[in-house]
Amino acid sequence: MSKSGVPKAVTKLLERLFHPMTGINAAPRLQYQSLGEEMPQSTKTAIMIIGGAEDKVHGREILHSFFVRSGSTDAQIAIIPSASREPAVIGERYREIFTEMGAKGIEILDIQDRAQCEDPILQSYAESCTGVFMTGGDQLRLCGLLADTPLMELVRQRAQRGEITLAGTSAGAAVMGHYMIAGGGSGESPNRSLVDITTGLGIIPELLVDQHFHNRNRMARLMSAIAGHSDLFGIGIDEDTCSLFEGDGLLQVMGKGTVTVIDPKELTHTNLFNIGATDPLSIGNLRIHILVHGDCFNLQKRIPIHSHSDNT
Amino acid sequence: MSKSGVPKAVTKLLERLFHPMTGINAAPRLQYQSLGEEMPQSTKTAIMIIGGAEDKVHGREILHSFFVRSGSTDAQIAIIPSASREPAVIGERYREIFTEMGAKGIEILDIQDRAQCEDPILQSYAESCTGVFMTGGDQLRLCGLLADTPLMELVRQRAQRGEITLAGTSAGAAVMGHYMIAGGGSGESPNRSLVDITTGLGIIPELLVDQHFHNRNRMARLMSAIAGHSDLFGIGIDEDTCSLFEGDGLLQVMGKGTVTVIDPKELTHTNLFNIGATDPLSIGNLRIHILVHGDCFNLQKRIPIHSHSDNT
Repeated sequence: MSKSGVPKAVTKLLERLFHPMTGINAAPRLQYQSLGEEMPQSTKTAIMIIGGAEDKVHGREILHSFFVRSGSTDAQIAIIPSASREPAVIGERYREIFTEMGAKGIEILDIQDRAQCEDPILQSYAESCTGVFMTGGDQLRLCGLLADTPLMELVRQRAQRGEITLAGTSAGAAVMGHYMIAGGGSGESPNRSLVDITTGLGIIPELLVDQHFHNRNRMARLMSAIAGHSDLFGIGIDEDTCSLFEGDGLLQVMGKGTVTVIDPKELTHTNLFNIGATDPLSIGNLRIHILVHGDCFNLQKRIPIHSHSDNT
Repeated sequence: MSKSGVPKAVTKLLERLFHPMTGINAAPRLQYQSLGEEMPQSTKTAIMIIGGAEDKVHGREILHSFFVRSGSTDAQIAIIPSASREPAVIGERYREIFTEMGAKGIEILDIQDRAQCEDPILQSYAESCTGVFMTGGDQLRLCGLLADTPLMELVRQRAQRGEITLAGTSAGAAVMGHYMIAGGGSGESPNRSLVDITTGLGIIPELLVDQHFHNRNRMARLMSAIAGHSDLFGIGIDEDTCSLFEGDGLLQVMGKGTVTVIDPKELTHTNLFNIGATDPLSIGNLRIHILVHGDCFNLQKRIPIHSHSDNT
């Protein structure tokens, strides 16, 4: 895995993320104010970071949004189940869902070896598909197989250019930043050993993503992680909840739970660099926003934009 | 339990807390920069809010500080074990500890009925003692037995005037604010039903205390609680950790874990008042500080003051 800085390829994404700047008064009329598949949904391509355990049975709101944003009945979907130790099973599960929704084409890119990422047939599909879905499993496995491969470069660039919709859930969400939380614990005072950080796939480099967030009590580990990365945003995504990026500089929230934004821009102090791995961490001045369905966060202005309907 | 506003008696405490104002440059040289009983410790009276599971065997730093602040070998200590269903056992445990340290007098005020709080003998001891220690157990039980009784009024007033050192651990800590967290859950998106709030003993009214804090993953419940009480400070205290107030406007941190301060002063938004009990909460703009041993928090200026030694 690359230990280098943020790849140059992402500068284009940053431009897309931050221009045009969308202020608090210019908040877009969201297309998914109500749950369920019956409402009109945005067809824009997006990067969708899903906190795991997304609804696969009832409203399937998040997966349906992925389907619609991938082109609906014209969608050509690539499922990457490589995070999982049972890629065939999990790949098939998602194939059934998107088939049932009416996707035109679905391929499971069952990559179990980095060499496969140079396979011209797989690359050709990645070149022509309209949506890519990365399943859950183990984020270290996923990065180990995909990072810095021609296939992943292609997917990343196409997602960053807005040519495809790229979604990842659970482990598939964890890999989205330049840095990635590989694992960690809970039930302890914030401390360095509570979280393992390594390199991710750098789809949206400035995010440090954690998933199954409040469901698995991961606030202390994300705060511990962000103390050492005050140039990033900590993004904690609950289960069946999605942080969605259309490239307009906004993080949009969709789904059942919350998205917690930890903004360390005004951090005044941390003892992180002067203590042992298990010593308790001091962190002065984190700003925290908890967002629900319909809310947004302006990444450049660093302010939340709450839904007028208050989710009621 | 009183459902009325903040009792008038506490205005004196507020004066003591906020005058003289102690700024960042006037931070006192803390007397407990190093762990262990061998270091000189402050003998000032204080209100000590302990996050539960304080060390009772080895360094016993927090309990020893309580002992010293209660007068050391001149200490006359009242133990209130009423939160516990086994008051005799837990009372005896603390009696042994303070006896071993050398306290001059120790009485267990085994209150199991509100009528006992009018007993002249108990009141007389509460009038003459130098330290009061409230054990763990059930905070609802403790408040049910003590709130608005002559005995508790006496203890509160003496503590607020700085005449005695008053400590509470676990349930004994939970009761310290005007409002109290009576119970709650974890492992969920922040929501109203995640936390039960009732009235506490109002020792330091402006605090909303939670204990066993990161140990029991209580960040989401304290944020949920504070969303509805933006005039308070949320104070989450880890196990074997103490928030200590000498009446100079500073919260001082002592012990093994962290104290998390949630400051909702700049809260810009919450959907709290417009949603159902289990709907996810949105909360815009919480400020959070995580403090370790030796750190302080200035309650009036609302700023953390970190130890120069960074706890190393």
